[in-house]
Amino acid sequence: MKLQRSERIAAIIKVLSDRPNHVFTFNEFTEMFACAKSTLSEDVDILRNIMHKLQLGNIETISGAAGGVKYLPLLGSEQTKKVLKDLCSSLSDSERILPGGYVYMTDIIYNPYIVQQVGKIFAAAFIHKQIDYVVTVETKGIPLAMITARCLDVPLIIVRRNSKVTEGSTVNINYVSASKRTIQTMSLSRRAIKKNANVLFVDDFMKGGGTATGIIDLMKEFESNVSGIAVFISTKKTKKQFSGDYVSLIVLNDVNESNRIIDLEAGIKLN
Amino acid sequence: MKLQRSERIAAIIKVLSDRPNHVFTFNEFTEMFACAKSTLSEDVDILRNIMHKLQLGNIETISGAAGGVKYLPLLGSEQTKKVLKDLCSSLSDSERILPGGYVYMTDIIYNPYIVQQVGKIFAAAFIHKQIDYVVTVETKGIPLAMITARCLDVPLIIVRRNSKVTEGSTVNINYVSASKRTIQTMSLSRRAIKKNANVLFVDDFMKGGGTATGIIDLMKEFESNVSGIAVFISTKKTKKQFSGDYVSLIVLNDVNESNRIIDLEAGIKLN
Repeated sequence: MKLQRSERIAAIIKVLSDRPNHVFTFNEFTEMFACAKSTLSEDVDILRNIMHKLQLGNIETISGAAGGVKYLPLLGSEQTKKVLKDLCSSLSDSERILPGGYVYMTDIIYNPYIVQQVGKIFAAAFIHKQIDYVVTVETKGIPLAMITARCLDVPLIIVRRNSKVTEGSTVNINYVSASKRTIQTMSLSRRAIKKNANVLFVDDFMKGGGTATGIIDLMKEFESNVSGIAVFISTKKTKKQFSGDYVSLIVLNDVNESNRIIDLEAGIKLN
Repeated sequence: MKLQRSERIAAIIKVLSDRPNHVFTFNEFTEMFACAKSTLSEDVDILRNIMHKLQLGNIETISGAAGGVKYLPLLGSEQTKKVLKDLCSSLSDSERILPGGYVYMTDIIYNPYIVQQVGKIFAAAFIHKQIDYVVTVETKGIPLAMITARCLDVPLIIVRRNSKVTEGSTVNINYVSASKRTIQTMSLSRRAIKKNANVLFVDDFMKGGGTATGIIDLMKEFESNVSGIAVFISTKKTKKQFSGDYVSLIVLNDVNESNRIIDLEAGIKLN
């Protein structure tokens, strides 16, 4: 199909951004638009510049036989700052305080637009780590894990709390949840993960790091490796209790039920 | 920022498609690009035509005071047919048969690229129904429900199997699951849904429709209404057992464990 430059450019960015981090070959586009490779290269250059200029993500070209072009849905630092500021403001609303000092936040972590922005921040932190899977444990981290997996173009893996007949044979492990002071179970289908995989663990909340430790142990059973951990919110104590590296978008310092104050701050520092 | 037409068009489709079904005002774009409204109108016309021509979704303009432009991530009929054909082919692989006649399909319903396409098909079926929330029950339908919610630009609601301290006060109901022959519980935070909402129920699997009936009852407790039901896969018997309307992407006719045959077909008919 013969198209004008502006039409071609609109179509290319649409196709690329519909499947972030996936390499499209130049041939796919030259066939789609019946254009020369040199024309396509110029289109991609224009796109790269405008996406960069408006902080709408990165266009990367890959040279060589397996080469092509891909779109990375990264959030610019200005936008990241705004997301963090808005989240801190919204989450510190005292109306969110629940009995027991818990903070209601499901409306935020299930909101597609917010989750999309957080998923981009997580993807940006791990996009050059060759992640093979995003792993989460049911339930509340699933939306965020799903969007992060979409940004990285890798499968999502959901670890269950107990084995299900629809999963076939499973690997089960027990782990200690410090925050709940109980022994809990994790279960994952034997089919779910190929050996020697690098996984990114995504969750909504990290307190003592018991779940993260459980996931690290479970991945060892699959001869795989946790290459990164990203959580929506952690606590002030997490840094002391969990020795591994992790990215935490928000850090919850304290919830004061009597004064009705939620004290939290951004967990990602930006210049 | 002054831009060339092709740059402006690329930026507009990127911004629009990053937040499907959300109305952006013309002012937002004329300010962003320092261009006249007439120029922007021409850009939008070009975009509308090229998206339509390449079946990459619809651009809709809304006139009047609350007017503007939005992107609808609809899949064209050719692409929908291809998605259905690929899914039927992949799901009928006999390696998927599990003991008890179950079919392993978590790799498919957790795959972001596939889920993205299915989410677009579901969104297309309900985009003109003024949906306020997408509702699902934990766990396996969550990725699909999340992407459908993203396509419709509405919040996702996840109904839990039992009440959680992080949800605050909840509404709990009991319902009968015909397939599991047990009484089960559903729990949802009182804060989760505003009154008089229209919800779309999305799930991975529907057999007798017990869960869907449970959701209908639960929504009544919130003075809200199930305006649509969309499931990834249903069975041949579902039509007889569940009297309501629903969209089912795939219909599972039979799993023959001894002959190792999975018999299924597309549940959506296209010309």
